[in-house]
Amino acid sequence: MKKINYLLGMCVFGVCFVQPGYAQLKQLEGFSEVSVQQQTGLEQRFDHLLQSSSIGATIKELSAEPHQLGSPGGKRVADAILKKFKEYGWDAKIETYHVLFTTPKTRVLELLAPTRFSATLKELAVPEDATSGQEGQLPTYVAWSADGDVTGDLVYVNFGLPDDYKQLEKLNIDVKGKIVIARYGRSWRGIKPKIAYEHGAIGCIIYSDPKEDGYFQGDEYPKGAFKNEYTVQRGSVMDMVVYPGDPLTPGIGSTLKAKRLTREEATTILKIPVLPISYHDALPLLSALEGPVAPQDWRGALPITYKVGGNGKTSIHLKTEFNWDIVPAYDVIAKIKGSEFPDEWVIRGNHHDAWVNGASDPVSGQAALLEEAKAIGQLVKSGYKPKRTLVYCAWDGEEQSLLGSTEWAEDHQKELAQKAVTYINTDGNGRGFFGAEGSHAFESFVTEIADDVKDPQTGSSVLKRRWAADVVKAGSSKLQKEALAKTGYSLGALGTGSDYSAFLQHLGIPTLSFGFGGEDAGGEYHSIYDSYENYIRFKDPGFVYGVALSQIVGRTVLRLADAEILPFDFRSLQKTISKYLEEVSRISDQLREDNVVENQLIKANVYQLAADPQKIFITPKDKETVPVLDFSKLKVSLDSLQKSANELYEWQKKLNNTPGTKNEKLNTALFQAEKQLLIPDGLPRRAWYKHAIYAPGFYTGYGVKTLPGIREAIEEGHWQEAREQIQIAAEAVLRLNAALSSAIQIARKIR
Amino acid sequence: MKKINYLLGMCVFGVCFVQPGYAQLKQLEGFSEVSVQQQTGLEQRFDHLLQSSSIGATIKELSAEPHQLGSPGGKRVADAILKKFKEYGWDAKIETYHVLFTTPKTRVLELLAPTRFSATLKELAVPEDATSGQEGQLPTYVAWSADGDVTGDLVYVNFGLPDDYKQLEKLNIDVKGKIVIARYGRSWRGIKPKIAYEHGAIGCIIYSDPKEDGYFQGDEYPKGAFKNEYTVQRGSVMDMVVYPGDPLTPGIGSTLKAKRLTREEATTILKIPVLPISYHDALPLLSALEGPVAPQDWRGALPITYKVGGNGKTSIHLKTEFNWDIVPAYDVIAKIKGSEFPDEWVIRGNHHDAWVNGASDPVSGQAALLEEAKAIGQLVKSGYKPKRTLVYCAWDGEEQSLLGSTEWAEDHQKELAQKAVTYINTDGNGRGFFGAEGSHAFESFVTEIADDVKDPQTGSSVLKRRWAADVVKAGSSKLQKEALAKTGYSLGALGTGSDYSAFLQHLGIPTLSFGFGGEDAGGEYHSIYDSYENYIRFKDPGFVYGVALSQIVGRTVLRLADAEILPFDFRSLQKTISKYLEEVSRISDQLREDNVVENQLIKANVYQLAADPQKIFITPKDKETVPVLDFSKLKVSLDSLQKSANELYEWQKKLNNTPGTKNEKLNTALFQAEKQLLIPDGLPRRAWYKHAIYAPGFYTGYGVKTLPGIREAIEEGHWQEAREQIQIAAEAVLRLNAALSSAIQIARKIR
Repeated sequence: MKKINYLLGMCVFGVCFVQPGYAQLKQLEGFSEVSVQQQTGLEQRFDHLLQSSSIGATIKELSAEPHQLGSPGGKRVADAILKKFKEYGWDAKIETYHVLFTTPKTRVLELLAPTRFSATLKELAVPEDATSGQEGQLPTYVAWSADGDVTGDLVYVNFGLPDDYKQLEKLNIDVKGKIVIARYGRSWRGIKPKIAYEHGAIGCIIYSDPKEDGYFQGDEYPKGAFKNEYTVQRGSVMDMVVYPGDPLTPGIGSTLKAKRLTREEATTILKIPVLPISYHDALPLLSALEGPVAPQDWRGALPITYKVGGNGKTSIHLKTEFNWDIVPAYDVIAKIKGSEFPDEWVIRGNHHDAWVNGASDPVSGQAALLEEAKAIGQLVKSGYKPKRTLVYCAWDGEEQSLLGSTEWAEDHQKELAQKAVTYINTDGNGRGFFGAEGSHAFESFVTEIADDVKDPQTGSSVLKRRWAADVVKAGSSKLQKEALAKTGYSLGALGTGSDYSAFLQHLGIPTLSFGFGGEDAGGEYHSIYDSYENYIRFKDPGFVYGVALSQIVGRTVLRLADAEILPFDFRSLQKTISKYLEEVSRISDQLREDNVVENQLIKANVYQLAADPQKIFITPKDKETVPVLDFSKLKVSLDSLQKSANELYEWQKKLNNTPGTKNEKLNTALFQAEKQLLIPDGLPRRAWYKHAIYAPGFYTGYGVKTLPGIREAIEEGHWQEAREQIQIAAEAVLRLNAALSSAIQIARKIR
Repeated sequence: MKKINYLLGMCVFGVCFVQPGYAQLKQLEGFSEVSVQQQTGLEQRFDHLLQSSSIGATIKELSAEPHQLGSPGGKRVADAILKKFKEYGWDAKIETYHVLFTTPKTRVLELLAPTRFSATLKELAVPEDATSGQEGQLPTYVAWSADGDVTGDLVYVNFGLPDDYKQLEKLNIDVKGKIVIARYGRSWRGIKPKIAYEHGAIGCIIYSDPKEDGYFQGDEYPKGAFKNEYTVQRGSVMDMVVYPGDPLTPGIGSTLKAKRLTREEATTILKIPVLPISYHDALPLLSALEGPVAPQDWRGALPITYKVGGNGKTSIHLKTEFNWDIVPAYDVIAKIKGSEFPDEWVIRGNHHDAWVNGASDPVSGQAALLEEAKAIGQLVKSGYKPKRTLVYCAWDGEEQSLLGSTEWAEDHQKELAQKAVTYINTDGNGRGFFGAEGSHAFESFVTEIADDVKDPQTGSSVLKRRWAADVVKAGSSKLQKEALAKTGYSLGALGTGSDYSAFLQHLGIPTLSFGFGGEDAGGEYHSIYDSYENYIRFKDPGFVYGVALSQIVGRTVLRLADAEILPFDFRSLQKTISKYLEEVSRISDQLREDNVVENQLIKANVYQLAADPQKIFITPKDKETVPVLDFSKLKVSLDSLQKSANELYEWQKKLNNTPGTKNEKLNTALFQAEKQLLIPDGLPRRAWYKHAIYAPGFYTGYGVKTLPGIREAIEEGHWQEAREQIQIAAEAVLRLNAALSSAIQIARKIR
């Protein structure tokens, strides 16, 4: 974090800002002293053009009706966004892709034994929410479930994650030929049926337990913000961690003439029927279960004794049939051409499609995007000329697994590989704390921006408020002390779950993702209650965090558009990768020690002795010996990277103080550098994901796995693969190192 | 733990035991090689006399009707026990004390606003439990509630402990002039109304949340073992941590002619009305609360949004009136006079009174006691003569706060001070794992006994099974490794909650408490369902753990009765006190560091910044500076103690190998030593509690506080008192050290 140097007075674009005793001049990453004045003035004018009322009006307009992918409402929303961009003076068009999309024809869920019950599968329109009873709503379902008609015994599998199946094994319960019921939470929903299928289940039900998302958390909607007994979370269950986007066109844009896989060839489509349900529908099913009482941490907030079932005494009928249609996805793409570097693109996106009305998800983020576009349009009208090209994108089909953004990125991959300086993403937004994730070379850049934007509720910077929250939340006084001493924002790493995946993880484009939240809790997510009326009560009353988001993203876009030297600092990236290396090294050491001790316990027969003889006991199997992994190659490559990152940073500082330098080649080297971290063959078992540092977890979904090749090989016990992945990661880091060395050579010449 | 030396064959009392290749001779703490043979044979004969069927019959007989203190059933149970002792050949009599006891006349609990509801205050008789509908049951209530008739707003206070009130302060909610509702758990129940009163509450309701004790844990009774919606936990809410026993006669036996306090003078009687209720009765009250949503860990398993209330929108009417009667408490005392040392008493007790039928609490422990008495009686009839006097006690009025045992111990305190070698306690008993608590000089003695008794379900020793459970439960592979390497049983420290308190904490008599459990979970505790039918289904089917308990206690009694040198090992005590010293030292250091950091956080304004501006925020007050406490005096005294304990142990070993030595003086010195740890003036604010090492926590109740004077002074921030208590504890340790030095002198002379 740089210190702010106050000077007196400044004038830009003919407008002068003077505050007695203060002024706006300060240092900015990538700007010389002269241009800082201009940039700061630009940002102040930008801020003044943002209106919370306008954001509110956009949210109301775009969430007025259901507007999912392929729907008339969806088309109307795309057209409305196109119209706005044009009004704002952007060069805008709709790019259409043709994607597979499933909508339900038949949904049946019945308990046949020991009692009978038919699931309602229907949310409740309430008078307090005017749009909750509209025509055109998608029924409650998940996209990419298989067609199926199955009957079987029911097993409760907790969150349905790998550890839960290990617990089931201890209870001698398997799910082969059975239907599982899992609760929402702890992972991306698509992981649950995938793992169920891997364990032989023939169907999967996912329900919202009031513990995580209902009365346990707060009053139910419409009294409060949380799920009521009929609310259902829709969503996608595509196996997105293999590849996102249209299942039929991996790696290429799903244009009309694209060569498509058959549905059978598409590995990301689920093989078993899946239905999401409310707790009203889950209660009779869970109540019917017998067998062992569920482990303590498996129990939710329903007023029952949670049991695991699986003893053959229940019979569940699950039937799903879908329309497997190819539908148009309308990406709205708007540009302002760069005055100096038209072939350097600063890309900013947010999706526009929703599961139903989507006031929060995605319209709140889309409204902030449009507000930025409006303000930038007005700046341009009054003479501002961004040096680099701005590309604003409103994606379609995000909800079905990032369809619009992925297909566009795949379709334009060659151009993007050359031109994309950065991709900046947002999605739903709400009241609370600043959050940012992305490429770690941006860490000090993001810190600087977050320090510049005021939190609307407290008047402190959003950086400081987030810091305060991190300090308070730290788990002990030792950790609080450390957090208190910390300066600078630690960027999170990106997994998946929004439109950045193709840019970052497939194409290696430097990426950022922003949002506010934490004081906007609620249960409207992917339900009919994600409405304007809900939003103004619970998510961002007054739309002030919409403005804050526009301020954050606007600064990011404008600084990247105009920076004399792009604000990459690879020292942060090096430090972060080194931290990840320490983590994976510690994990493998811990696993080795754990397995040694576990085998001692097994040998000493303590599990058998400690077990309740009235309960089932399965003798644990001996654990394998974890080899000592040699991380030295990666370590050495990171040491080299440290040196070049430090040297490059010194050059950037030197050149930054030299106004008017022509740095195009250097800038190109800087924004191209992260692509060196792409692994040519991609990650094992999912070649679409090519980034050596960031990927969604194969068994966590949204949750990121950093150094994914190494980390997942260790977690899955693939030791030879772990060794190979260390080598592959080390090579990637060496390539990055070479790229930074080239950049240093370029910098020397400028000097 | 000593190694077992197997020899071939042995004969005692004319009975020979030979197993091919093995034999029973081994080392025993306190016995010479010659007498070990005799003792081991005695114990085998003792074991053969124990019958699970007999224990079952006793449980059935003594739990056949409600038999609380002062009831006709209670008198019948005392008489039945007296009769049994006499039949078994013991010199038995009833000693009667006259104690205050409250029974309810009026119990009213009504919700008056915002809706109306009258609490049922009634448990449910069920056909599956024949005694659940009997006449003579005490209504659901707690003893020592005040008479009262109060109406006020309701506040939910979680478990009602000091930290909960700190949370309420943060929410700007106080309980002054209001009625609180607390859930059972985390502390002894009497702590809850005491703290409520200290905070200004006018009434207190305690309910059983299904989270801790109901469907969340398992099926409800009678389907399963857990509390159903009407089940209520009765109990005592006397301020027992000040002194237990009759509130009117602290420190003296409540004989007919004892000088009594008035009720107003008795500090242990609650000042506000209190009622325990079922979750059926709690649900409408908790549902009526508004105000802030309760913190996450305050929420139970009822299907509601738990809120704190206290905003003046509820009105609760609570009325209680009691009979304040003086009733007879019948302690059954049975003796077998010692053949060599009649004035050395080995005392063993278990209460006989119950809240209702009490099959588990206390009859299961009482039945084991009677089974031991029967077996010992038979051994005596066939020629066995214990060297020391055995005193078997069946206490009355334990449930109302250890009335019978406390009054007897106070009444006989002079004699006990001279004669009591050890007090051995049990209470309810069930299926599962061995547990022992008590004076730490007995640690290796208890280990030896637990190694000798077989777990009825697994055939391994109860020591090994408990060790296995401890290993499995250890929280990490590091801790598991440590637990795996551990030999010997770590005695727990005694707080309060059963009849040992007067012996250990008032009189300084070496004490042990034993029991089995952990596989006997259920919700019958202090309800009408603590019945024989419940017991045989859920607590100890087959009564095999009753036999195991008799085996454990029988060995303890017989070895203490006959040991040539009493098996005290003060090295364990020294190590344990040293560990406690490390703990309190660490706690004060941690508190100092915590307060420093907390003040930094307050100064940096992070709490305010991190707080949700839509919620109440109370600026935290600066924390006081925690002084550095000088523990060196206690440390030095423990160093001296270490030397003398080691030297004494060496002497015990030497003399132990010398058969037939006359060690009476040494033994007296050994069993008298722990009394040196009594603080003449007792603990601050509760002089009745005199032990420098063990006391129940002033704000935890059952939960022990070790080095209580120091620990609680630190916890409460009384720094001068902490310094004084370090001095007082150091002096106590030095007195113990002097006593051990005297014992060494005696030992030298024997040699």
